[in-house]
Amino acid sequence: MNVKAALREQRIETPSWAYANSGTRFKVFAQQGVPRTPYEKIDDAAVVHRLTGVAPTVALHIPWDKVDDYGKLASYARDRGVALGAINSNVFQDDDYKLGSVTHPDPAVRRKALAHLLECVDIMDQTGSRDLKLWFADGLNYPGQDDIRSRQDRLAEALHATCERLGADQRMLLEYKLFEPAFYVTDVPDWGTAYAHCTQLGDKAQVVIDTGHHAPGTNIEFIVSFLLRAGKLGAFDFNSRFYADDDLMVGSADPFQLFRIMHEIVLADALKPAAGIAFMLDQCHNIEPKIPAIIRSVLNVQEATAKALLVDREELSQAQQAGDVLAANGALMDAYNTDVRPLLRELREEMGLDPDPMAAYRRSGYAEQIVRERVGGEAAGWGA
Amino acid sequence: MNVKAALREQRIETPSWAYANSGTRFKVFAQQGVPRTPYEKIDDAAVVHRLTGVAPTVALHIPWDKVDDYGKLASYARDRGVALGAINSNVFQDDDYKLGSVTHPDPAVRRKALAHLLECVDIMDQTGSRDLKLWFADGLNYPGQDDIRSRQDRLAEALHATCERLGADQRMLLEYKLFEPAFYVTDVPDWGTAYAHCTQLGDKAQVVIDTGHHAPGTNIEFIVSFLLRAGKLGAFDFNSRFYADDDLMVGSADPFQLFRIMHEIVLADALKPAAGIAFMLDQCHNIEPKIPAIIRSVLNVQEATAKALLVDREELSQAQQAGDVLAANGALMDAYNTDVRPLLRELREEMGLDPDPMAAYRRSGYAEQIVRERVGGEAAGWGA
Amino acid sequence: MNVKAALREQRIETPSWAYANSGTRFKVFAQQGVPRTPYEKIDDAAVVHRLTGVAPTVALHIPWDKVDDYGKLASYARDRGVALGAINSNVFQDDDYKLGSVTHPDPAVRRKALAHLLECVDIMDQTGSRDLKLWFADGLNYPGQDDIRSRQDRLAEALHATCERLGADQRMLLEYKLFEPAFYVTDVPDWGTAYAHCTQLGDKAQVVIDTGHHAPGTNIEFIVSFLLRAGKLGAFDFNSRFYADDDLMVGSADPFQLFRIMHEIVLADALKPAAGIAFMLDQCHNIEPKIPAIIRSVLNVQEATAKALLVDREELSQAQQAGDVLAANGALMDAYNTDVRPLLRELREEMGLDPDPMAAYRRSGYAEQIVRERVGGEAAGWGA
Amino acid sequence: MNVKAALREQRIETPSWAYANSGTRFKVFAQQGVPRTPYEKIDDAAVVHRLTGVAPTVALHIPWDKVDDYGKLASYARDRGVALGAINSNVFQDDDYKLGSVTHPDPAVRRKALAHLLECVDIMDQTGSRDLKLWFADGLNYPGQDDIRSRQDRLAEALHATCERLGADQRMLLEYKLFEPAFYVTDVPDWGTAYAHCTQLGDKAQVVIDTGHHAPGTNIEFIVSFLLRAGKLGAFDFNSRFYADDDLMVGSADPFQLFRIMHEIVLADALKPAAGIAFMLDQCHNIEPKIPAIIRSVLNVQEATAKALLVDREELSQAQQAGDVLAANGALMDAYNTDVRPLLRELREEMGLDPDPMAAYRRSGYAEQIVRERVGGEAAGWGA
Repeated sequence: MNVKAALREQRIETPSWAYANSGTRFKVFAQQGVPRTPYEKIDDAAVVHRLTGVAPTVALHIPWDKVDDYGKLASYARDRGVALGAINSNVFQDDDYKLGSVTHPDPAVRRKALAHLLECVDIMDQTGSRDLKLWFADGLNYPGQDDIRSRQDRLAEALHATCERLGADQRMLLEYKLFEPAFYVTDVPDWGTAYAHCTQLGDKAQVVIDTGHHAPGTNIEFIVSFLLRAGKLGAFDFNSRFYADDDLMVGSADPFQLFRIMHEIVLADALKPAAGIAFMLDQCHNIEPKIPAIIRSVLNVQEATAKALLVDREELSQAQQAGDVLAANGALMDAYNTDVRPLLRELREEMGLDPDPMAAYRRSGYAEQIVRERVGGEAAGWGA
Repeated sequence: MNVKAALREQRIETPSWAYANSGTRFKVFAQQGVPRTPYEKIDDAAVVHRLTGVAPTVALHIPWDKVDDYGKLASYARDRGVALGAINSNVFQDDDYKLGSVTHPDPAVRRKALAHLLECVDIMDQTGSRDLKLWFADGLNYPGQDDIRSRQDRLAEALHATCERLGADQRMLLEYKLFEPAFYVTDVPDWGTAYAHCTQLGDKAQVVIDTGHHAPGTNIEFIVSFLLRAGKLGAFDFNSRFYADDDLMVGSADPFQLFRIMHEIVLADALKPAAGIAFMLDQCHNIEPKIPAIIRSVLNVQEATAKALLVDREELSQAQQAGDVLAANGALMDAYNTDVRPLLRELREEMGLDPDPMAAYRRSGYAEQIVRERVGGEAAGWGA
Repeated sequence: MNVKAALREQRIETPSWAYANSGTRFKVFAQQGVPRTPYEKIDDAAVVHRLTGVAPTVALHIPWDKVDDYGKLASYARDRGVALGAINSNVFQDDDYKLGSVTHPDPAVRRKALAHLLECVDIMDQTGSRDLKLWFADGLNYPGQDDIRSRQDRLAEALHATCERLGADQRMLLEYKLFEPAFYVTDVPDWGTAYAHCTQLGDKAQVVIDTGHHAPGTNIEFIVSFLLRAGKLGAFDFNSRFYADDDLMVGSADPFQLFRIMHEIVLADALKPAAGIAFMLDQCHNIEPKIPAIIRSVLNVQEATAKALLVDREELSQAQQAGDVLAANGALMDAYNTDVRPLLRELREEMGLDPDPMAAYRRSGYAEQIVRERVGGEAAGWGA
Repeated sequence: MNVKAALREQRIETPSWAYANSGTRFKVFAQQGVPRTPYEKIDDAAVVHRLTGVAPTVALHIPWDKVDDYGKLASYARDRGVALGAINSNVFQDDDYKLGSVTHPDPAVRRKALAHLLECVDIMDQTGSRDLKLWFADGLNYPGQDDIRSRQDRLAEALHATCERLGADQRMLLEYKLFEPAFYVTDVPDWGTAYAHCTQLGDKAQVVIDTGHHAPGTNIEFIVSFLLRAGKLGAFDFNSRFYADDDLMVGSADPFQLFRIMHEIVLADALKPAAGIAFMLDQCHNIEPKIPAIIRSVLNVQEATAKALLVDREELSQAQQAGDVLAANGALMDAYNTDVRPLLRELREEMGLDPDPMAAYRRSGYAEQIVRERVGGEAAGWGA
């Protein structure tokens, strides 16, 4: 059956930092048993993949996941059934970056930031990662604080230099975000900005859509569709939000929106790995336990995908051509209203997995085991 | 003095439809004395220019301003001291356009819409207008209603055909709008979409920023700066809004934002007519009298411009380079906090104008005259 | 079975104006076969009830539904199996109301507006309606335009006078709306304002929640829960929106939100008619055919309700008490993810209805019949 | 002169935490010379008052400003020309509060939180503070996580117990906030919720408006006016924001809004201390130096107030009564467009102050002095 075949092929990347402590500016509520090293993060990611069957890679964040020997880390991952995924740069947690990184007025700071980006490519060479994911916290808090246009020039320069350094099979994924931590201007605030830079940079540069990074009222599936048409969609950072935050489990705030996004992906036949879209989670589990929250998130994406695959495209297209608004909307809603959980349980059994990954995790004793074993050392933190 | 010289050069285009009746979906409150013909709209626009000295052109909207002889209309305008400006197309008020115009699933509707766009270029040839301004009400109200990507293909096709038809000195200005009248997808919802199409279309296609057409929290001056850097900013539609509407007098909701926008214009030396940016009003005066509201709007743009011209760029730039956040913000605010009304009164006197155009209009008796004279016939309405 | 028993009891009121033509400020796309009289609107509402079994009343809008003999209208409705519901006042479509109605600075306009409200109560006496629904378009477009506080005084005075006039079994339902048609201040902009006035007015005054009338990011189910706790929730106006409009079919933009709202209703045992909450639709079907859109909307409310009734409250409550975030969220999502369409088909068959009301309407030939028969006369319009 | 007399009377309270380090969830950029103790915070607050003349009190935050002897702290402040102001409780930074404080499902956590609130009243008895300011981070991240209504019951219980404990001259100020740190439900999300609780609690409970805590599009001056009319406005927390944050210097994002707020205050004659409205700052200076940023903020409030005092109320009122929209708006704008800096310089000279507090601070050498002297110890942090 086509739907199941497509679901078997699906790949969702989990982020190393989601396994670690995180919080808001008000408080980080530390959890017991969180990993203390990149190796332990990989242990946890491997558990998620073992139970879901569709999360075979884990994204790293540099310097949070810095190790002496990335080859060893990659082989450690391989031994546990997973692989290292995208390398995420971090040019926002050093004191030098108070007023920006690659867009900073001071060339010395810009050089330092660029050196970090290039270092990330070095790491990619060692991990075998295809994707360099760039998110910049750069921006302004006050009108007049810096020159908007000059900062674009500086940004373009850094992106160009980084792109130049990429190997033949490597890509740069550029993320945008409306605001936070900058409160007035963000230097890459929207998909248009990311798209324009990526177009200038050429084929190796692609846009990342983080589902939590838009102004209220933004139609995300439109952006998905537009970037797919333009050949410029490189990846998703999945999460969800009700307001301006971007921390919640994907699909928890607006599951219908997630379905509409996956519908555009299915329409463009972009679900399959060969299409080159990286489907990643980027979330912070501030109050809920990390590993089951990540499992839940993977399942949410999977359920939305299954529904999208069930859309009767023939019926939809005919109603659209006929201008039958209610029938066209009805064709989409029929798929959305279907309960796909039985289908997914069946799929998992066929894949040799437990049909209920959440229950399987609970039964596994892993949660208790890590609390017991991960004593001493420093718990890794979001930003640690 | 440079500031005054720059202000003398400023050109603000007023829209013919702002002189006519308009309203919300709930009610159009008709006003007495509103024009009944394109000729009377030009009479009113001429009054605005006579009093302000900086509004020498008036934009037309087709078919609202359809006349048999555009040469005659142009010469009528010329006799009154103004010229015809941009031609605005209208592909949203015919029953055929219920589900779209250039993006409609039915090719017959698309052909009809394209024919209208080309007719507008014919009219431009007659009026001598440089700019064709395109705003599409096209979009979807319900998920699934039509295929987002196919609609982009259809849009691109119509834009291409229209662009091809343009003469050597003519331009296409593409406007975007987050939503309304479409409530779920708008086919040109944001600057990124307009920019991407204009980039494909080449040098004759430029983006229009309507200040009322953004999602909450959007930083408009960033878009201004970005498009100026990319050479893709063609025009402004000025107005203001507190929520999602775009009807209020420019500068009435957030005068500081208008100042920040004009600051980017001044920084890029894009105020002067040679820079090719068209500064237009696009407003609806639903409850206030039309002509003085338009005068007020022109003055608001002028005041914001004067403040932007007063920014001490040397001081600003030094503070920015030094990373002195408060000093840089302070340099901008010093100009904003200046009362420029005395300067503008002086300028008007130097230009042979009344220093207070609002008072001069009140004294002129024109308001009473049009109420007296414009009796009978059909008052022109926004959308009439 | 409890779920079915609760669903059998459910009552959804449809609005007379949703059967008539409506549109945006840009264009009303007239449809064929729309009703020309209040009697024909009742015919259409009767069809919706006949097919769905849960829409036994129809709300009137005065003056749009003015007739000489309301007793006759009520009896006409009764003969067709429906009853007249809430009376909706209209103090926004007369030229006098340009600057407000009950809040207008001119006492003569206020008296006129109040007279209309009292007339609506007269009509209620004749129709036997329990509820007077008040929505005021009153507000300001510009800062300074009028005194915010004085307008509250005037509003309070009119509400008080109207409340005094109500009979023993009559209620006043006060609606709030963030903005539109007023663009700067709305005199009843949020639930807090409506609640404060209703608290002053006493037991007969209750708040209406229109699901489309909130600022972005507002948590509507919180308001539902809060007003239920305070005993001040009187009614819903159901519809949905993606942006700032409030026109779309309820449940079409965010079905999960609708479910969460109905969950609060079920938790408070407020679904049953005895609880006194009026569940009304308030929508505009601008591009889709009216009657099937209303049927679809009724079904959407019914589906959300069925899911809310399926929540395992014991499981939910235990997880909440235990602070198990994922389990508590999971208990809610389990119900939401259930496909309730089979259950509802079963229920309809037990009620002697066609299991698929949309298909039954298509087969009925009613759509073709009204197009054939409703020729000549003036089609009723939203605001006609 | 009345304007100057009113300005002399103005009192703005600065918050102890604004002098300390703060940041976003991404990074706290530590500054040199920030205070290490409550005593040093008072030193800084005294400098702000010495230079501006209108900031005579400093708000404390417990436990951040916990000391052994509050009498000694109060006398230390008095010696430096300032007094201790409102006591701010903190029930969000203890591990127990992960799922709430006074609304937590576990009664033991609720008891602990209540004990802290009562402890704050004990401290007020010692400091002589009139106001207890309550802000709760309580809320939910996920639908279903806890029962919305039960949490209101628990909240009401804690507020009641705290109110009971207050002395005859003490007040409770209840703050609301749309979201953050909770991402789905906030237990006191809007003014309506705070108002409803305060109304139940009686005269000692008043609402706090934090200018940064609203949904996009919220009209804050409407809320100011409404609460003043209801006698329920207790205080302001001033700051500003472009998006969803609330960290920026008051008046820096939308100075026109600040003016409109102060206009409502002036209209209600609520500026004078006897009116009982506490005007406080609540800001985080993440990237700009703290003390001059606070001075700048005080000046911004002062400038907005001066403009509000300059409104020609007679002219305004006449235009409003006459329904002259443009003249009424014009009367307000005339005051806003006035440059009040000369007036304020004059006022300061009359008060024996330096006419330019920002320059006076720079010249004072205090910034360099604290960097030199505050070495060693632990810099106080926002949340430290």
